[in-house]
Amino acid sequence: MLRSCFTEDQIMFRDAYRRFLEQEVAPHREEWRKNGIVPRELFRKMGEQGYLLTWADEKFGGLGIDDFRYQQIMIEEDGLYGEPGFFHTLHSRLVAPYLKHFGNDEQQQRFIPRCVSGECILAIAMTEPDAGSDLAGMKSRAEDKGDHWLLNGSKVYISNGILADAVIVAAKTNPEKPREMTLFIVEAGMEGFERGRNLDKLGLKAQDTAELFFTDVKIPKENVLGTVGKGMHQLMQGLAEERLITACISLAAAQSAFELTKSFVEERKAFGKPLSEQQNTRFKMAALRTEIDVAQAFIDQCVAQHNDGKLTAVLASQAKLYCSEVEGRMVDEGVQLHGGAGYMQEYEICNLYANARISRILAGTSEIMKEIIARSIFEKR
Amino acid sequence: MLRSCFTEDQIMFRDAYRRFLEQEVAPHREEWRKNGIVPRELFRKMGEQGYLLTWADEKFGGLGIDDFRYQQIMIEEDGLYGEPGFFHTLHSRLVAPYLKHFGNDEQQQRFIPRCVSGECILAIAMTEPDAGSDLAGMKSRAEDKGDHWLLNGSKVYISNGILADAVIVAAKTNPEKPREMTLFIVEAGMEGFERGRNLDKLGLKAQDTAELFFTDVKIPKENVLGTVGKGMHQLMQGLAEERLITACISLAAAQSAFELTKSFVEERKAFGKPLSEQQNTRFKMAALRTEIDVAQAFIDQCVAQHNDGKLTAVLASQAKLYCSEVEGRMVDEGVQLHGGAGYMQEYEICNLYANARISRILAGTSEIMKEIIARSIFEKR
Amino acid sequence: MLRSCFTEDQIMFRDAYRRFLEQEVAPHREEWRKNGIVPRELFRKMGEQGYLLTWADEKFGGLGIDDFRYQQIMIEEDGLYGEPGFFHTLHSRLVAPYLKHFGNDEQQQRFIPRCVSGECILAIAMTEPDAGSDLAGMKSRAEDKGDHWLLNGSKVYISNGILADAVIVAAKTNPEKPREMTLFIVEAGMEGFERGRNLDKLGLKAQDTAELFFTDVKIPKENVLGTVGKGMHQLMQGLAEERLITACISLAAAQSAFELTKSFVEERKAFGKPLSEQQNTRFKMAALRTEIDVAQAFIDQCVAQHNDGKLTAVLASQAKLYCSEVEGRMVDEGVQLHGGAGYMQEYEICNLYANARISRILAGTSEIMKEIIARSIFEKR
Amino acid sequence: MLRSCFTEDQIMFRDAYRRFLEQEVAPHREEWRKNGIVPRELFRKMGEQGYLLTWADEKFGGLGIDDFRYQQIMIEEDGLYGEPGFFHTLHSRLVAPYLKHFGNDEQQQRFIPRCVSGECILAIAMTEPDAGSDLAGMKSRAEDKGDHWLLNGSKVYISNGILADAVIVAAKTNPEKPREMTLFIVEAGMEGFERGRNLDKLGLKAQDTAELFFTDVKIPKENVLGTVGKGMHQLMQGLAEERLITACISLAAAQSAFELTKSFVEERKAFGKPLSEQQNTRFKMAALRTEIDVAQAFIDQCVAQHNDGKLTAVLASQAKLYCSEVEGRMVDEGVQLHGGAGYMQEYEICNLYANARISRILAGTSEIMKEIIARSIFEKR
Repeated sequence: MLRSCFTEDQIMFRDAYRRFLEQEVAPHREEWRKNGIVPRELFRKMGEQGYLLTWADEKFGGLGIDDFRYQQIMIEEDGLYGEPGFFHTLHSRLVAPYLKHFGNDEQQQRFIPRCVSGECILAIAMTEPDAGSDLAGMKSRAEDKGDHWLLNGSKVYISNGILADAVIVAAKTNPEKPREMTLFIVEAGMEGFERGRNLDKLGLKAQDTAELFFTDVKIPKENVLGTVGKGMHQLMQGLAEERLITACISLAAAQSAFELTKSFVEERKAFGKPLSEQQNTRFKMAALRTEIDVAQAFIDQCVAQHNDGKLTAVLASQAKLYCSEVEGRMVDEGVQLHGGAGYMQEYEICNLYANARISRILAGTSEIMKEIIARSIFEKR
Repeated sequence: MLRSCFTEDQIMFRDAYRRFLEQEVAPHREEWRKNGIVPRELFRKMGEQGYLLTWADEKFGGLGIDDFRYQQIMIEEDGLYGEPGFFHTLHSRLVAPYLKHFGNDEQQQRFIPRCVSGECILAIAMTEPDAGSDLAGMKSRAEDKGDHWLLNGSKVYISNGILADAVIVAAKTNPEKPREMTLFIVEAGMEGFERGRNLDKLGLKAQDTAELFFTDVKIPKENVLGTVGKGMHQLMQGLAEERLITACISLAAAQSAFELTKSFVEERKAFGKPLSEQQNTRFKMAALRTEIDVAQAFIDQCVAQHNDGKLTAVLASQAKLYCSEVEGRMVDEGVQLHGGAGYMQEYEICNLYANARISRILAGTSEIMKEIIARSIFEKR
Repeated sequence: MLRSCFTEDQIMFRDAYRRFLEQEVAPHREEWRKNGIVPRELFRKMGEQGYLLTWADEKFGGLGIDDFRYQQIMIEEDGLYGEPGFFHTLHSRLVAPYLKHFGNDEQQQRFIPRCVSGECILAIAMTEPDAGSDLAGMKSRAEDKGDHWLLNGSKVYISNGILADAVIVAAKTNPEKPREMTLFIVEAGMEGFERGRNLDKLGLKAQDTAELFFTDVKIPKENVLGTVGKGMHQLMQGLAEERLITACISLAAAQSAFELTKSFVEERKAFGKPLSEQQNTRFKMAALRTEIDVAQAFIDQCVAQHNDGKLTAVLASQAKLYCSEVEGRMVDEGVQLHGGAGYMQEYEICNLYANARISRILAGTSEIMKEIIARSIFEKR
Repeated sequence: MLRSCFTEDQIMFRDAYRRFLEQEVAPHREEWRKNGIVPRELFRKMGEQGYLLTWADEKFGGLGIDDFRYQQIMIEEDGLYGEPGFFHTLHSRLVAPYLKHFGNDEQQQRFIPRCVSGECILAIAMTEPDAGSDLAGMKSRAEDKGDHWLLNGSKVYISNGILADAVIVAAKTNPEKPREMTLFIVEAGMEGFERGRNLDKLGLKAQDTAELFFTDVKIPKENVLGTVGKGMHQLMQGLAEERLITACISLAAAQSAFELTKSFVEERKAFGKPLSEQQNTRFKMAALRTEIDVAQAFIDQCVAQHNDGKLTAVLASQAKLYCSEVEGRMVDEGVQLHGGAGYMQEYEICNLYANARISRILAGTSEIMKEIIARSIFEKR
């Protein structure tokens, strides 16, 4: 289907960003995957080009462009020409917005310009060992010591966990009220803040993911983000956009897997003719093309609604649920049609397959998405 | 998802049409299903209200409204409040347009006003026994006898076959060139034109479906529709819209099945609590709600493109393929969640289940849709 | 896969039974489906040949053969050559065994000989309107009136409900203890026992299914089956075999659908070659052949374990869950490969499709099967 | 389901082998996975215990036990307690049998004792770059030079390719007859035989997999295996057993994934109760338990038929097709139920997920299995 949802400016932006990826990202991604991390300089290069926090106010060095389509374009290009394990969108659109929405003037001035430039890399730490996505089960705690808070606890599966200069950490702050939590900005170098090893994941090899440990970390009061005790509520604010982002990432990966597979089956011959002339190949690819196109129509509508301020939690959950499943089916069939080659990491489809498996889990599992959607069906009364 | 694709006028049109269904259709559908056919008067009542051939020129009694959304609205309301086995859309948008596109002035004047009023009910006869959707395997033949054509052959699975006053029949007309066929308007009462019995189908019980027999039927030359030998090409013209229509019908059925099932699981208790509080029910319904909403976004885009004259064969095939599958999954789960009741015809979900099974077959099977889509993927070079 | 599980005797029995079906069943099944019921004489003909209650003691006129494989053979032949809507197995192996296990000598002498001969047709009535499979929600009640019980209530979806001469009815018998129920033998002609209409079902058209009403029915004490208050426990006894039977029926239907579809695709040509030469057809049929063969291996093992007295509730639930799903996939693809013909009741695949939809529901839904299996996984500790 | 297919001896063998795995394999597998290869000594330790080539004649140091159940037991234990990436079964039952079936006395004496002891590790090299499983597309060629053959070509995705002391290599040997090929025993150290790097695969990390290059390798005539020109035919002989083996491996992996997931969901709490008490978890696990049990019944029948010399190509293809799909579904759901942990390599489910993806591809893709099965359905006439 012809997409008519982008402006002329956006199409030019896409071209420029693609060139950036071809020059600065694609040639190095093998190495970064081997290292399990991207270099800090990459964030700075992105910053120089204005690709980080595009929404940030010009006074902070940003472009002041909040139209989500620019981010959507970057996500799509990352999937096709970049490195899906380079989580700049996490930095720009998942974590930094907490500074915008809940940071005071001083905090914004202190952090946002350095986030825009890529000097200060961000992460957010919610998940804990043995608790999964269940925020109520959180064990990290901070105690009010008068002029500072004392933070203890640990967090796990933290993306950008190794690179991060500033981590927004959620912790319980009222022993009487177990659901009250507060967000703190923990900075690299604070005493008692340590990082575990970079975790070995199935995929997303260039993305660092770490366990973080906090032992009697003294958090100055000026590093409380937002209102004490309102952390849970604040975290909720970002969820819909976060899920729309993951949906876009999944769909971009599916598009990429489709293109790689299409090329492969056109080239690879079996029994004297290209795989693309086998009816099985054709029918599978036709069904997948359809699922991807259908999903794209939905996502483009969601993005339009998001730009209009109308993206609901339910809609975002549907987008994430659906796109992550389409991605899963596409990469699975992509590997199958590649045959033995699909199992080798030198073929990109193999990496797309490995990457994809987290999509139905991260940012809320498919089961959580279904629960959110189900509530909207049955509990309206 | 909030749909914003309809105008105020269209929303009013929807209300009026729904009232028509509630008064003229819903109370009688049990009887019509038992009879295997709707009464001829029903077409006339539709005609009186201007619901047939809305696109027809005002000089023919039509409204001159070609915006597909009006038909989409009628299809959606038929699914929710009408009788899915009443094939007025076949009459209005699948068959009558052949008169518009290929009929000469005399033919248009002779037929279209009576089609608008519902006096002349239309059918189209392509499929033959043992040939399925394979038009090239057609055996019906017409011979040029100077002042008339002599038609011989038979057709099968013809919707509106019992009711039809005029049937557009495809037949081969050049023994030398087996792919050349011509369209003829065969009228009720012509000697040698006979109808078989009304076929017993799994579902769509109110829709008559017949085998038609043509034995030395003399077709006057003025009943040739369009150009002799160009029948195949002419038939192709209507396929994309036909598939979009079937996609809309499938999706409307899915919406209806969803609503029926939602109500049922909210009422029916098992082991002390409503089915709607079982996690299995909730997850299944959430997934189906998502599939339906995603499909609706796609269909609404397709309708917009159709109104802009940009509906491609591929897009229409994707719409039909996808929506018929969503319908199939929805009615299957709908029956399952109804338990034993779902197997009883007194529960509407049972009829929706039976209706749905033809959707992946009629107007081109899913396999044909996939072949069309596959060609667009692989043969562009 | 070659099955080696039957004896010479059983192979001969199969041949004889097949001839019986070819003579006494196949020629009439169209008519019976139209009538919604089989004639009473059919049970008597079965009885004459010794096909009913084969397990019954010779003193009651039975063959004294309890080897389940004889019943398995009849089920398989019914699926391939008989009428799946003729529920003699319900009579012989689901209901009559309650008389064997819980009936006293007098009851056995009174009923079993007439059940063996087919004079007395049996049904069992558990399900109630609005309660589904949830026995605890039962509303039927019987009150001890000294020399008789007074039964009030209604039952729904009762197979053989119209034909039955004797119905085993479950009712609550202790207002203090809502889980206590008792089984009663209600006989045709008892005052206050009335039958509703024969229900219109999606499929299994030759099988009568009725709602039963009991208004102040006086049940003589000698018609209490088993121990007062132990009805629930008694009903449980038969469930495993019942589920194995439905599994066998499903698998036989799948085998039949496979054969019909195989023949169809070998004959039907599309675009110049048989459908059986299309890769899509071949792959689909290969996958289904595999699923059926795998299921058959499992069922044959289950039958062997059943004959050894080792059929567990879990194993039977797995058999039913799995085979009903294989059946569902097979008939769905069978219809698809038949194209338009598959939607016409004159093609047997259409009826197999309609029949199959109840398999995932009756005798415990797939959801209940999963719950039973899940308990065995997680609650062993 | 209780399996009754093993003898007392076999149950004791299982225990002994499990202890071997616990002592010699489990403690080291992390390291081997990091290295991408197992140590050569491991083969020797296996040999010392008699676990290699159990079928080999006692005169060659073997146990002379050809009952496949012993291998089945080792495969099952490898899946549950060993290292799925240690391909001793490839050595013992896929490659070595070619020596038994086609080797002459001298060759058997030269190789088999060292294969039994683990000194000589075997590989087989069929697949070539750009040809996949299509043997007819093979480009490797050997030329008869009188007293030796001159081999040129390359092979890819060769399991044990780095470790192997002897590789059975298929090459074309008749330029006139492109389907004629011959098997050669290429030994480590032969001039012109080189190995590429150990390939990075998605999973099976401890298994070495290499590209092999042959440049003017002089193969002495005594290293021709079997009959010149009959290589294709010879290769076919081993396919059925190979596929049964891969089916057993898949099923063992599925069993292992089930157990790991069961333990995880019993421990992990979400929202105050273990995941194992969520209906979604329970239903998914029940369905998977069923699929695994059904597959196991089928496999146990296949093994019995194999021991009776009746394993057909079709049966083996069905076993591989089905079990690899069950494995795929099990590991996918296993990861999902593990949530974020399932994506981390420190959780074994992550490795099982990565391993599983090759099962639908290696030893003949699912598509090839379907083609073989389809031929048996449609081409018997």
